Amino acid sequence: MKDFTFVSPTRIHFGRNAIQNLSKEIENKYSKVLLVYGFSSIKKNGVYDEVIKQLKSAKVQYFELSEIRPNPEISKVKEGLKIIRENGIDLILAVGGGSVIDTAKSIAASFYYDGEPFDLNLHKVQPTNALPLGVVLTISASGSELSDSCVVMDDKTLIKQGFNSDIVRPLFAIMNPEYTFSVNKYQTGCGIVDIISHSLERYFSPSEKFEIADSLALSIIKDTIEAGKVAIKEPNNYDARAALMLLGAYSHNGLTSLGKNKQMPIHKMEHALSAYDIRIAHGAGLSILIPLWMEASYKKDVEKFARFGKYVFDIKDEDKEKCSLKGIQLLREYFRSIGMPIRLSEVEISQNDVSKIVDLMTDCGALTIGPSSINPLKKDEILKLMESSL
Amino acid sequence: MKDFTFVSPTRIHFGRNAIQNLSKEIENKYSKVLLVYGFSSIKKNGVYDEVIKQLKSAKVQYFELSEIRPNPEISKVKEGLKIIRENGIDLILAVGGGSVIDTAKSIAASFYYDGEPFDLNLHKVQPTNALPLGVVLTISASGSELSDSCVVMDDKTLIKQGFNSDIVRPLFAIMNPEYTFSVNKYQTGCGIVDIISHSLERYFSPSEKFEIADSLALSIIKDTIEAGKVAIKEPNNYDARAALMLLGAYSHNGLTSLGKNKQMPIHKMEHALSAYDIRIAHGAGLSILIPLWMEASYKKDVEKFARFGKYVFDIKDEDKEKCSLKGIQLLREYFRSIGMPIRLSEVEISQNDVSKIVDLMTDCGALTIGPSSINPLKKDEILKLMESSL
Repeated sequence: MKDFTFVSPTRIHFGRNAIQNLSKEIENKYSKVLLVYGFSSIKKNGVYDEVIKQLKSAKVQYFELSEIRPNPEISKVKEGLKIIRENGIDLILAVGGGSVIDTAKSIAASFYYDGEPFDLNLHKVQPTNALPLGVVLTISASGSELSDSCVVMDDKTLIKQGFNSDIVRPLFAIMNPEYTFSVNKYQTGCGIVDIISHSLERYFSPSEKFEIADSLALSIIKDTIEAGKVAIKEPNNYDARAALMLLGAYSHNGLTSLGKNKQMPIHKMEHALSAYDIRIAHGAGLSILIPLWMEASYKKDVEKFARFGKYVFDIKDEDKEKCSLKGIQLLREYFRSIGMPIRLSEVEISQNDVSKIVDLMTDCGALTIGPSSINPLKKDEILKLMESSL
Repeated sequence: MKDFTFVSPTRIHFGRNAIQNLSKEIENKYSKVLLVYGFSSIKKNGVYDEVIKQLKSAKVQYFELSEIRPNPEISKVKEGLKIIRENGIDLILAVGGGSVIDTAKSIAASFYYDGEPFDLNLHKVQPTNALPLGVVLTISASGSELSDSCVVMDDKTLIKQGFNSDIVRPLFAIMNPEYTFSVNKYQTGCGIVDIISHSLERYFSPSEKFEIADSLALSIIKDTIEAGKVAIKEPNNYDARAALMLLGAYSHNGLTSLGKNKQMPIHKMEHALSAYDIRIAHGAGLSILIPLWMEASYKKDVEKFARFGKYVFDIKDEDKEKCSLKGIQLLREYFRSIGMPIRLSEVEISQNDVSKIVDLMTDCGALTIGPSSINPLKKDEILKLMESSL
């Protein structure tokens, strides 16, 4: 086990009445709040009204930054920064899922940096401080409500990149599973894939032996698959939605890579894919790329892939290679069963697109994907892997 | 899943070089530190010297409260409070295991309460504030380094009781698995049993259906059993010691009961046992009582007990009752295999003692043990259960 420092300080208020804690978190601590959200869905399902009621009860002034898209853009971050600087905001409240929360995180950390906000994502500078940030979660997927991760896209260069820092972990997260009842089947599926990927990539991150974190990762993956099946069939099933919400949070807060050298090569590849074609949802890109990456990589650690198949899908085959391949096949079939794409052709990516995407992904071949992962991939290998999916 | 609020804010510094973070945690934040520890073991194994070096490097003045026993006594808490009040201490640093940390927690919370410190444990008052508290962990067992729990004994009434409050969760925990190499086989075994019990009692806490927390609990129990086997045979095995240290922390921080109605009836029973005879270590009391409680309770939720046997010990038997009983039997055999007592007679408890212990446990029959657990136990039932172990 590697040495590590870990903290996950976010206070979680979970359940049907979770929102009632919002005013308590704010009152007498903050005076001006920037509300960050996406489009009209939170107005349709009543979440917006509930939030405003709490803000009024906490007697704070509030400002709004809305129309945050999936694949959130740095231009929105700049817009938010302007509002904050002009109005002396002292708390950012993200109401939404990963894109909204990551936009809010980017604003929070950029506030203390005079240069271009995207410099943080390009790792030109390390964030040193951040404005306080709270979350009202409406989609179970990104885990950004607890995580140290902040991914945004430079809408000019199409580079989508993340940085990690404990200072952007939210102070509190309001998590009411009922808020996710209205998330449609496709978005629910995207979320399920994202939750799985966060622990799956950590599980397959290199380690000399089986780690404690690996057991937790497998447990989260298996439970997500089970809860996901139910949530797709019964969108208003509270227990399934609650399970996904909790699993999403703990799949990405760092628990499933404690003491490991975390590597997220599939996320890295997917960021290029969905930056290239912003109609592709992050989860949809992942559902295509995860099995492709696994097929290309299982021989590098067949022991671990076999354990994945055995634990997650109860595969009894004692032959480790067969068990590995069966596990990958069943995961792909699962993605298909919850309505997710499993081939690039299904998201209208052509041979011509693939070359451009892989250039974007590898900076025209200069970068290796997952240089410290179990299977570092160069441009040609990725091209081959993606072409097999057309 | 029940509504809940959960926070586990402790910053963990884990690994061979973890101690180097101590001065950084203290410097420029605090000026006077109360060092709380047990007996000479930390002086023999070098931990004391490493801590002092860090305190000097952080340029703080330090005071000492030592000779904290297993089954920590409220008289020591009062002694600590006196030092703190006379010297204007602003940080408490616990160097040790559960007894030392819980003594430090009791001091930290009592500082803001004018009455008797044990009032907190008797639930006469709720703690509202606490002095900052840091931990250097030297025994993997109690999980107190992350937990909200504080158990001490009133050395006059022999009542050993805990309270729970987020305000006593430590700010930081320095966790170097090497510090536990010198923990002897018996104390290591006691720790293993305690770690198992924290997730086991949460797992068997009532829930309508299988919860996410239950998967995490089973995962922690199984990994503890495996790492425990190795640590008992090879006390200097870093990976096994590291696994136990991490498992101990997460078995009791609340993760394995998220959204559940946590009940700790076996701990409740054990506190009476080790308060009655302070020569009985907490883990030794638990290793006797856990299988007894399980045998008395499995019929109340045979589904869950069967799942326990199937997951933890790979029992294939499809008959749920047989699988449950086999799981309990294998757990008891495991406790025996790591050198723990499995009968009351082994810790020199007689028929006459049992009556007195059960009176202490149930306040002469007035209290039910685990009133909201799957198997609320009254005096006569506990008597029968304990007598079967003489």
